[in-house]
Amino acid sequence: MSTPISFTKGHGTGNDFVIVPDADGELDLSDDQVAALCDRRFGVGADGLLRVVRAAAIAEGAAATAAGVEWFMDYRNADGSAAEMCGNGIRVFVRYLTAVGWADAQAGPVLVGTRAGIKPVTVHERGFEVDLGVFRIDEAEVLVRARHLDVARPGIGVDVGNPHVVVALPTADELARIDLTRAPQLDPAPAAGANVEFVVPNDPLVQGGTGGLSMRVFERGVGETLSCGTGVAAAALAVRHWAGAAAPDAWQVGVPGGELGVRVAAVEGDTHVFLAGPATLVFSGEMVLA
Amino acid sequence: MSTPISFTKGHGTGNDFVIVPDADGELDLSDDQVAALCDRRFGVGADGLLRVVRAAAIAEGAAATAAGVEWFMDYRNADGSAAEMCGNGIRVFVRYLTAVGWADAQAGPVLVGTRAGIKPVTVHERGFEVDLGVFRIDEAEVLVRARHLDVARPGIGVDVGNPHVVVALPTADELARIDLTRAPQLDPAPAAGANVEFVVPNDPLVQGGTGGLSMRVFERGVGETLSCGTGVAAAALAVRHWAGAAAPDAWQVGVPGGELGVRVAAVEGDTHVFLAGPATLVFSGEMVLA
Repeated sequence: MSTPISFTKGHGTGNDFVIVPDADGELDLSDDQVAALCDRRFGVGADGLLRVVRAAAIAEGAAATAAGVEWFMDYRNADGSAAEMCGNGIRVFVRYLTAVGWADAQAGPVLVGTRAGIKPVTVHERGFEVDLGVFRIDEAEVLVRARHLDVARPGIGVDVGNPHVVVALPTADELARIDLTRAPQLDPAPAAGANVEFVVPNDPLVQGGTGGLSMRVFERGVGETLSCGTGVAAAALAVRHWAGAAAPDAWQVGVPGGELGVRVAAVEGDTHVFLAGPATLVFSGEMVLA
Repeated sequence: MSTPISFTKGHGTGNDFVIVPDADGELDLSDDQVAALCDRRFGVGADGLLRVVRAAAIAEGAAATAAGVEWFMDYRNADGSAAEMCGNGIRVFVRYLTAVGWADAQAGPVLVGTRAGIKPVTVHERGFEVDLGVFRIDEAEVLVRARHLDVARPGIGVDVGNPHVVVALPTADELARIDLTRAPQLDPAPAAGANVEFVVPNDPLVQGGTGGLSMRVFERGVGETLSCGTGVAAAALAVRHWAGAAAPDAWQVGVPGGELGVRVAAVEGDTHVFLAGPATLVFSGEMVLA
């Protein structure tokens, strides 16, 4: 049996997605079907797939539905496995909702159900901004080694819903030189692994009240990517932590795929981290799955 | 100014193309625009672009027009530079022509103008078969080195319109093991470079009158690819040459992206090499170029 799948392709700073509208939850995409859509040679090609489904239409959407949230982001990795959240993907998800008229971001935050809870997404001068929620910094030192990294360097752990290790480098030259075709080595190695961000703080660090840094990221199980939304947030949080009490709450982060904004702000008594950046729809089409 | 470009995405054994119909030669795609379409994260993504244009509509099509050939394959590399021929691309090109009704492959060979001359393409049980024309084997030994290749191994040169060096390996294990993330070293190095094919002949070499081999390919200026049409032809021609006078004229070649057929036959007093394989259209869409 062959199934025609309508899709839209989009990206946020080069982190790219196949968006599959399925408002009524009628598509039960197998891992193999997701992998076929995400295959860059034989399919559409993407880092992951975003199925756009009404929370009320699927069992996983129960908590979102109970909270009055209409849409659920069924985020799948390129191999078809389910994933929790994606800081770039959720902006592209809301760009799609507003483009097809399924949500009105001008009227206030669009709430999106995800496997990591309900995330508010707001229109922003960069595109959209998502509230990633609370975060946690773990100062226990992790030694990071990578090919063409001059010496083993200490990193710190940042948890933004998923685990990161952030390492500061002294120069843009060293950042450009490290070889991320292989996974960096972490000592001690976190049980579940971690994404690793290599960062170079700007000099001066703060301009016009905004802190700045450049980074490259190695995503666990994936490799180097052009952008990792939670990694961008983790990198800014680490540099802010190192900068101490006088550090600003607003940050600009350069990744190979573009520029993103990070800010820290109080929300109902907690401290949340927000990620802002572009979200672009590139083309739409239909692919027939075997 | 923004330009909407209608396209179809297709591939032959994983060698993939953005097909842009432009019958009347009205599109003057800059290198940057081709690169934007071929970008795998920010665009449609492909190894190259095939513009489908009437030979009579462009200056480069003059020779084809003089010979009564209607269609010209304006083949561009992913960086926008013009390329001569592509054994996988031309099958996808004819698949597109027949799918939209611009050619009737059932009525006989479809003649396609290319920068390497006029190529006849015929319907075949594998999909389509293209006559790549004459070839030349150069027995002057070239030593080939690559990471995880046990020793430097001798290769021979095969010219199929573009230059190749073909190297035989003793086992499938050694073929799987070599690291083609970096270019193999050739000694002496050909002035214009060469694609390098690593091949393992089947054991037994010939079954049911057809010779067989597996291969991996490193394309100059590109890297390892899932398939290279002229490389497949060159690999079969090299193994046929080594096998001597009793070698068959029909070959089956396995590449990471699939299976192709190669045969050698006389055409008007010359000896030509033919390449047969699948050609698949995956989806269509429209992308707006800046």
